[in-house]
Amino acid sequence: MSRELHLAGFLIASHVTHSHAAWRHPASETDYLGPGYYQRVARTLERGKFDFLFFADLLATPVRYGNDIRVPLQSGTQASATLDPSLVAAGLANVTDRIGLAITKSTTYFHPYEVARIFATLDHLSGGRAGWNVVTSLNQAEAQNFGAQDHLGHDERYERAQEFLEVAYKLWGSWDTDALVRDKVSGVFADPDKVRTVDHEGTWFKTRGPLTVPHSPQSRPVIIQAGSSPVGKDFAARWAEAIFEIDPTPEGRRAYYDDVKSRAVNFGRNPDDIKIFPSFVPFVGETESIAREKQAFHNELADPISGLITLSVHTDHDFSRYDLDAPLEDLVVPGTQGLFDVARRLSASENLTLRDIGKLYAQGVLLPQFVGTAEQVADQIEAGFTGGEADGYILSAAQAPGTFHDFVDFVVPELQRRGLFRTEYTGSTLRDHLGLGPASLTPAARRASVVA
Amino acid sequence: MSRELHLAGFLIASHVTHSHAAWRHPASETDYLGPGYYQRVARTLERGKFDFLFFADLLATPVRYGNDIRVPLQSGTQASATLDPSLVAAGLANVTDRIGLAITKSTTYFHPYEVARIFATLDHLSGGRAGWNVVTSLNQAEAQNFGAQDHLGHDERYERAQEFLEVAYKLWGSWDTDALVRDKVSGVFADPDKVRTVDHEGTWFKTRGPLTVPHSPQSRPVIIQAGSSPVGKDFAARWAEAIFEIDPTPEGRRAYYDDVKSRAVNFGRNPDDIKIFPSFVPFVGETESIAREKQAFHNELADPISGLITLSVHTDHDFSRYDLDAPLEDLVVPGTQGLFDVARRLSASENLTLRDIGKLYAQGVLLPQFVGTAEQVADQIEAGFTGGEADGYILSAAQAPGTFHDFVDFVVPELQRRGLFRTEYTGSTLRDHLGLGPASLTPAARRASVVA
Ligand SMILES: Cc1cc2nc3c(=O)[nH]c(=O)nc-3n(C[C@H](O)[C@H](O)[C@H](O)COP(=O)(O)O)c2cc1C
Ligand SMILES: Cc1cc2nc3c(=O)[nH]c(=O)nc-3n(C[C@H](O)[C@H](O)[C@H](O)COP(=O)(O)O)c2cc1C
Repeated sequence: MSRELHLAGFLIASHVTHSHAAWRHPASETDYLGPGYYQRVARTLERGKFDFLFFADLLATPVRYGNDIRVPLQSGTQASATLDPSLVAAGLANVTDRIGLAITKSTTYFHPYEVARIFATLDHLSGGRAGWNVVTSLNQAEAQNFGAQDHLGHDERYERAQEFLEVAYKLWGSWDTDALVRDKVSGVFADPDKVRTVDHEGTWFKTRGPLTVPHSPQSRPVIIQAGSSPVGKDFAARWAEAIFEIDPTPEGRRAYYDDVKSRAVNFGRNPDDIKIFPSFVPFVGETESIAREKQAFHNELADPISGLITLSVHTDHDFSRYDLDAPLEDLVVPGTQGLFDVARRLSASENLTLRDIGKLYAQGVLLPQFVGTAEQVADQIEAGFTGGEADGYILSAAQAPGTFHDFVDFVVPELQRRGLFRTEYTGSTLRDHLGLGPASLTPAARRASVVA
Repeated sequence: MSRELHLAGFLIASHVTHSHAAWRHPASETDYLGPGYYQRVARTLERGKFDFLFFADLLATPVRYGNDIRVPLQSGTQASATLDPSLVAAGLANVTDRIGLAITKSTTYFHPYEVARIFATLDHLSGGRAGWNVVTSLNQAEAQNFGAQDHLGHDERYERAQEFLEVAYKLWGSWDTDALVRDKVSGVFADPDKVRTVDHEGTWFKTRGPLTVPHSPQSRPVIIQAGSSPVGKDFAARWAEAIFEIDPTPEGRRAYYDDVKSRAVNFGRNPDDIKIFPSFVPFVGETESIAREKQAFHNELADPISGLITLSVHTDHDFSRYDLDAPLEDLVVPGTQGLFDVARRLSASENLTLRDIGKLYAQGVLLPQFVGTAEQVADQIEAGFTGGEADGYILSAAQAPGTFHDFVDFVVPELQRRGLFRTEYTGSTLRDHLGLGPASLTPAARRASVVA
């Protein structure tokens, strides 16, 4: 079978997406606190045969920029207000049939017993459509909400994440697929030889098990990751089955694609088992000039300060202390650097000031914008897909649910006409949609050490 | 207005209810892992104008009885397999309109920032229908799943619960009701004077805040509790707005009612602001003898060992070591005693052996069974409601969803004919259904200390 394009939709359970201006668009819905908005997006994407709808998450209102919660709240920057995405996704499991439902959970602030239980439950309630974006969390504000003064160091967070996944895999494997008997007559509920304690005692976690949740349809959620540091990319190459990426240039995306796929090979994996999803914001119009005008209208609404607040969240570094009109090359930013490196590269190559970067960040966290007619946007997708930058794309909205409607009504049919994208779901689970085989429950660490 | 009866439905996100035999009934649904079963129960109870559907929860497969997970799994005892109820309830928020959705969350194994976020999210997604059964967790098996060797002592768990609620109240109050501005034109998202950090530093918890979730429709979930120890009853009298109770006799229920209401008065509360819900299992038939035959058929399916396993869970004490044919009076059981005291009282007054108690426990954790025609069951409810034992009742199913169908189709109309129960919802939130005024966000501890 020829290679198949994959498509996902990006949301935060919030008024914004990557675009901090999304909520200001006249056509955007403003009630993101009730379930209706999410239902409309999910049903639209399901109509468009998308692989999955994804929810990012952050565990604190931004506070790093100027050490102040007031400005982020006022400007409605990213993460100034977000619902718990696991509940939003569970709600959508009840009102959709096929589309995958992927959510973000941090490995830094919860216990694996709880997180394993959440995903096993979501996988059951959705009939095998759960995905988990494994993140290690970004900043001190999140640590402080959960009782710590400082957050763990970058590499320690990844060590903890590694053991966290090992524990979760053990718990998901604590019930065999066929453990449930449910024989009403004999009264035998489960086969006790097919359920076991896990008795994990490691550096970060202890747990006895078994999980309270029987083996779920996909065995476990599809593992998604978005590390951009070397440690993060190795972690992704070991564990992930789908990877999100933010890079504004085709060259950057191709380099990332090659890098992660070859890291996966180093860990003994088939590179086809990791699907790489760069993100973009689409602007689709009847003509190219309508699309460009839509783009300009949106970008104008983006507030540079609001973007710098999110850059401060993403890097855990206060950008309020620099001259807005200086270039970025001279700034020394410690800690998490992934997205800042992208920003610095962009600033150097295009002569951009901090204010310009703030505005770009507010327009969509450095995401590329794919602009034009349905054919033109499909051309860009096809070029990236066949040109070694992507196995699929994750779309972020400039207004919601409008962006998703436009894409599903105009671009998806064009992609289908070209034979790039499915016209009907052929399977029922997220693994099916992604063309992944049955899930392994052998922790990647063990798999990797066999190879090493 | 005359006093109004309240009704709730009890479930665990599991194959059993209080009745360990429920799943063996020929008419019971067996797929409790998908969402359909919960949807059918919730819609049935909503058709019956119930105040709310409630989900109990336990965080471990039973292991105390004989130090063995095999027997509980095999016999399908309570908690041998349960989904995470917060996701199940969030799912139901999408497919119901009026019925309250209450879930259990322990204060012992999570951080209040997370739990406050879950309930604020559920309250938004359900349009103000969330309730929280605050439990301190029961046994060592739960502790061991969450990395501790032993669980905290009984009174320490309640101290932690006290601070847990104080922190949660602060977080729910961190956004004022009218903090969201969402002015697309000016770009003002929230009024920064109406959102604040909480900066809590206590004995058990630290958190900075604000919550990532704006003020929810009910301000916070309705607080539910089920303490049966003196400390537990005081905790309930301080904080709870609804209380669950298990007591097999009318005298026991009246004593509990008086006890908790007077404790509430001691804490300076209006006793009408705590609704007391004893539980029962209904068996309804066209004739009394049909109902009795239904009851006998169900009770026959209950396995005494499975009941003793749950008694061991509830008391964290191993009942496998005693003679099944001896009475209970001589046993000395340390730790949590609430339900064991009820069992001992029953054993003494009715000359029951441990095996008998096990069988009763398996039939429904010592819940009374209300048996007869619709009129007869309504008589028992009316007698308890007007006779000082209950403000409402929580129904537990002998088979599901059948028990709920029978009750809604036959008993509810009879209660409505008598003017005891609503024929239509008059409000939209769970607080409305329960006749509670606007929620206070002043922690009960502070309220109480003003009075003391
Ligand atoms: C596209 C993308 C999406 C991300 N989504 C989240 C998220 O929702 N929540 C979060 O805490 N971190 C998120 N992150 C952060 C990363 O998952 C990761 O934790 C962080 O980048 C630190 O790791 P690194 O240094 O390897 O990049 C995202 C990163 C990228 C590139
Ligand atoms: C009707 C009823 C329902 C309960 N539901 C739960 C539950 O779902 N999960 C749980 O951990 N404890 C549950 N409990 C236990 C209590 O909430 C409480 O934590 C326990 O009884 C210890 O407190 P106590 O000694 O004051 O009774 C329940 C108790 C009763 C009486």
